[in-house]
Amino acid sequence: MKRTMLSVAMLALCSTTATFAQSDYQADSIFIRKIFNTALSEGHSYEYLRDLTQKVGARLSGSAGAAKAVEYTRDIMVKENFDNVLLQNVMVPHWVRGAKEKAYILSGKQKIVVPIAALGGSVATPKGGTKAKVIEVQNFQELRALGTDKVKGKIIFFNRPMDPTKLNTFEAYGGAVEQRGYGPSEAAKLGAVGAIVRSMTTRLDDFPHTGSLRYASGAGMIPAAAISTNGAELLSKLIKENPDTEIYFEQYSETLPDVASHNVIGELKGSENPAKYIVVGGHLDSWDFAQGAHDDGSGCVQSIEAVRLLKVLGYKPKNTLRAVMFMNEENGLKGGIAYADSAKNKNEKHIAAIESDRGGFIPLGFGVVGTPAQKAKIVSWTKLFTPYGLYELGPGGGGADIGPLGPQGTVLMELIPDSQRYFDYHHAANDTFDKVSKRELELGGASMAAMLYLIDKYGVE
Amino acid sequence: MKRTMLSVAMLALCSTTATFAQSDYQADSIFIRKIFNTALSEGHSYEYLRDLTQKVGARLSGSAGAAKAVEYTRDIMVKENFDNVLLQNVMVPHWVRGAKEKAYILSGKQKIVVPIAALGGSVATPKGGTKAKVIEVQNFQELRALGTDKVKGKIIFFNRPMDPTKLNTFEAYGGAVEQRGYGPSEAAKLGAVGAIVRSMTTRLDDFPHTGSLRYASGAGMIPAAAISTNGAELLSKLIKENPDTEIYFEQYSETLPDVASHNVIGELKGSENPAKYIVVGGHLDSWDFAQGAHDDGSGCVQSIEAVRLLKVLGYKPKNTLRAVMFMNEENGLKGGIAYADSAKNKNEKHIAAIESDRGGFIPLGFGVVGTPAQKAKIVSWTKLFTPYGLYELGPGGGGADIGPLGPQGTVLMELIPDSQRYFDYHHAANDTFDKVSKRELELGGASMAAMLYLIDKYGVE
Repeated sequence: MKRTMLSVAMLALCSTTATFAQSDYQADSIFIRKIFNTALSEGHSYEYLRDLTQKVGARLSGSAGAAKAVEYTRDIMVKENFDNVLLQNVMVPHWVRGAKEKAYILSGKQKIVVPIAALGGSVATPKGGTKAKVIEVQNFQELRALGTDKVKGKIIFFNRPMDPTKLNTFEAYGGAVEQRGYGPSEAAKLGAVGAIVRSMTTRLDDFPHTGSLRYASGAGMIPAAAISTNGAELLSKLIKENPDTEIYFEQYSETLPDVASHNVIGELKGSENPAKYIVVGGHLDSWDFAQGAHDDGSGCVQSIEAVRLLKVLGYKPKNTLRAVMFMNEENGLKGGIAYADSAKNKNEKHIAAIESDRGGFIPLGFGVVGTPAQKAKIVSWTKLFTPYGLYELGPGGGGADIGPLGPQGTVLMELIPDSQRYFDYHHAANDTFDKVSKRELELGGASMAAMLYLIDKYGVE
Repeated sequence: MKRTMLSVAMLALCSTTATFAQSDYQADSIFIRKIFNTALSEGHSYEYLRDLTQKVGARLSGSAGAAKAVEYTRDIMVKENFDNVLLQNVMVPHWVRGAKEKAYILSGKQKIVVPIAALGGSVATPKGGTKAKVIEVQNFQELRALGTDKVKGKIIFFNRPMDPTKLNTFEAYGGAVEQRGYGPSEAAKLGAVGAIVRSMTTRLDDFPHTGSLRYASGAGMIPAAAISTNGAELLSKLIKENPDTEIYFEQYSETLPDVASHNVIGELKGSENPAKYIVVGGHLDSWDFAQGAHDDGSGCVQSIEAVRLLKVLGYKPKNTLRAVMFMNEENGLKGGIAYADSAKNKNEKHIAAIESDRGGFIPLGFGVVGTPAQKAKIVSWTKLFTPYGLYELGPGGGGADIGPLGPQGTVLMELIPDSQRYFDYHHAANDTFDKVSKRELELGGASMAAMLYLIDKYGVE
């Protein structure tokens, strides 16, 4: 959300005339208006999202829901008469939660049930659960200072909140999420028997927010779970009141053998350079107890919609445009890796890839990763987006799924929507369809269509 | 949402150096950062809004809820140790809905119940309800072309939707709301016995959105109600299938004698010019079946918070800062008028007034109404707001409640948040606390505090 308006504006000012003849600017401006008008008055993305979240529902990699989501999005693109719709094979991890977790705090005579959720990839507790004294830490330094003597046999409670003063909530997430990703192994190295991690949200509520952990090789794999922020506040308070406070938790998660799955790809064929590609995409998988409305059902339906909008407006692309639903962003990135591998093996030249994976919120700009010249060219289009509330092209990266295309020289871009609400829902059971605004979703899809159009028409060099 | 970034940016660029010494800019930038940090980490507005919407609840002028809201917001400001908290007397209209309305469509053998809500100020139907053939029109031209012969004894159904392609949804509202405000009288002039108006929202759902009508003098006062958009779509479809379709509705609304009520005012006394005032405000009344979370509970708690933030940060204002909860914006504006009258009578010089009445959504800028020089001065501060996502100072007006201060030379301003979701909830039963994002609300309050600070420090001349 940190923005450098003046520099962007000046750049736009200085380079617009050089890049566009006035007639092109006007023609582009008119066409982009049509894109937005069509999205806002006859958009399809919201109804697609309704079905993806409510009829398909949760769709963690390897699950029946994920398989259903593959079929559903393929069917949409077939129904929309995309030139070509294909499934790309990819093997994905298959982690399952099992039965619902149990957890309670034991403090003096109190026994208080708290909401937890096993972290993605976590092992189960031993049968009958894990119970131990719980030690709160704010960071790894504090943990290491405790040493093996104090940590051995205990459950470590990582309770550093996301910094609420960060305007860009992804920065706040970035400043706290190591606790979830690496905390369990850091605790295991010192002999801990379990890890409880404060949910990654600035809200205080009762939803545990899951997400992947990464066990370090060589450290024991201890069970780890996210606790809701209200639960974390309570646990912290009870520990302060009574340092002998214990926590009990039982979870049943396990990692099964990999499963055959798919990326789903829909194409609008290029008329001049059919073997050159521009991608818009999101990831099709969600966590297992979440509808994944913002993460990342929105990005999927916006990607389909971006291509569809150009199609229904009669635009004939020079290059082949692809909407790609990547599988397995949440716990493996196998889809993104398989896509880039395939592109390399088939010598498919990917000009640019645009991901939407920051929720279906009001779009504010695009992140761009490319050479300075490529970036400057894209930034020169800013003026075409400001009428729609996108003030900033440039800052920010590309998305996770398209990252593996980077080494092939592909310009990586990401739709940047407002981030204030994203972590209210991220990886939690409240990431549901009713949290998505139809107009905000549509504006994001239209923005992606407009960017797709400009890149196709003018290239990035 | 239409924005003129380049001109604003250039103006900011050209005038920033002239207005600020570098040290002032840095000091202001640091202080504004403190305002935002405090709002985001220790803000009070969200909990105030929770109570105002859930403990006080609906608060239409003249109701017990409105009286409770007066007490509640006064108590908050007393508790926050504002220098002075006062109630300003104002007589307000007292319209009541009575029992819940009934309505159904009769088409052939079908009888289908539809959700309606009497428009604010509407008369009741005759006892037993009104039933008549219903005629759909898109606008007043179409209605007048029908003439008395075709309209007499019928119910007129105003069904022109808000234009979904308008990026600024207030423009779309402005393009449709005459149907609600003046439609009933236009229909009555031609002998209609009732009016049904499509709800003012771009969403398709089952919530009727009420709002004031204005009976024209000389036209008969016929009962008028809003119908939910799903209901409107159905009614339109049935009329097309069967032109003899009738609608029945019964409503029980009436206008009672005026009631004594209050504006609620909290002050932070000015150290240099205590008799000069800068106001931040929202309106305390809501519609009778709505919690009024976005309209305008948000504006009220943001106004209190804006003053509170400056207070807790130890800022000593030169001029007296006031948070004002205006009563009766929805159906009379008596609070705004009384406030301006009092200011005039007491010779209170009002430098500027800032209203928040566009919902507690992510703030994007401020509207400014003043002389070109005043406007330019305020626009020169743009750079101080862009780090927080407010890119545009200038375009847009002041709010309804502060409008009556205009003739006194007061600069009128309005917080401009994103408008995409506002009419999803406006004047409807789903305008509830859970639709408000804590962070978005806090960012709006902090933005108002920052603007209050700058106006107090630098003036507007």
